[in-house]
Amino acid sequence: MLELDKAKGVLRRNLITAEERRENDAEHGWHVTMFALVLADYAPPGTDIARVIVMLLVHDIVEIDAGDAFVYDEEAKARQPALERAAADRIYGLLPASQGHSLRALWEEFEARQTPEARFAAALDRLQPLLLNFHTQGQAWRQHGVTSAQVLQVNAHIAHGSETLWAFARNLINEAVRLGYLNP
Amino acid sequence: MLELDKAKGVLRRNLITAEERRENDAEHGWHVTMFALVLADYAPPGTDIARVIVMLLVHDIVEIDAGDAFVYDEEAKARQPALERAAADRIYGLLPASQGHSLRALWEEFEARQTPEARFAAALDRLQPLLLNFHTQGQAWRQHGVTSAQVLQVNAHIAHGSETLWAFARNLINEAVRLGYLNP
Repeated sequence: MLELDKAKGVLRRNLITAEERRENDAEHGWHVTMFALVLADYAPPGTDIARVIVMLLVHDIVEIDAGDAFVYDEEAKARQPALERAAADRIYGLLPASQGHSLRALWEEFEARQTPEARFAAALDRLQPLLLNFHTQGQAWRQHGVTSAQVLQVNAHIAHGSETLWAFARNLINEAVRLGYLNP
Repeated sequence: MLELDKAKGVLRRNLITAEERRENDAEHGWHVTMFALVLADYAPPGTDIARVIVMLLVHDIVEIDAGDAFVYDEEAKARQPALERAAADRIYGLLPASQGHSLRALWEEFEARQTPEARFAAALDRLQPLLLNFHTQGQAWRQHGVTSAQVLQVNAHIAHGSETLWAFARNLINEAVRLGYLNP
């Protein structure tokens, strides 16, 4: 439990709206899990929301060792899988074996994005920073020279979790371009 | 979803171990929910852990308006219920009515501490800051002149959620006194 405290020091690129500072993994973990709870009706019929919630609670734990790879940084993203596997070995290895295996399996399911639960969880994991980037006037996008084509590409898999949320996200991206928050 | 972002600016008294700063409600929300997931075996038989998890996710949302009352500040705690009810009216009122009612009911169940789920959730809500206070050498306790008698009294209801976790907590409190982290 003490090890998890370190997630509060793992910084993401997106800012929070409450203050002008970067969000950390623990904050993101709570917020995106609340997305699952509140937006459950947008999941495909038959999605097990309790499993989505647990998946989202654990989905970034490996970043305690591996750090957060900016979703628009292709080089960092290429290095990430090996770092995250080593992190999973160490961190899930702190738990009793059967518990470590079952929580790690949920993280691997999230990463693979094949089940309805993983697809919905992955959609929310993209929607949450998109919403924060929009409501902080695209500061993180502009600071890192991100374009609307990149944002559309990186977020397109929201559609595999929920067509409705993808329609919402696309509107937000178009509006961000119109308002000058995001370069076309 | 945007309203919840404000929880990242609601500061608690306890510090985090990763850095020398106060923890906020979003970080606490994720961490204490992870306690429920990982320490589920310590809950009384028959406890519905999925409900404990949802209860802990929402348990501090009212603090977005009401703020965090320090658990050792009796005056602040006396003012808190009325502030939290008004906050619940506003914040849960942002949701569609049936969803707002059911999430608010879970928060009220948590506050009443009558069901096994609420008792276990409340135990973890005490254990998490106790662990952080211990592993930051009792800085928050010493700064606010808190004594071991107060810590024992405020945390005693951990026993209603789990006798095993209360035995662990009592040992931690005794050890904190021995090491000079906490005044006897």
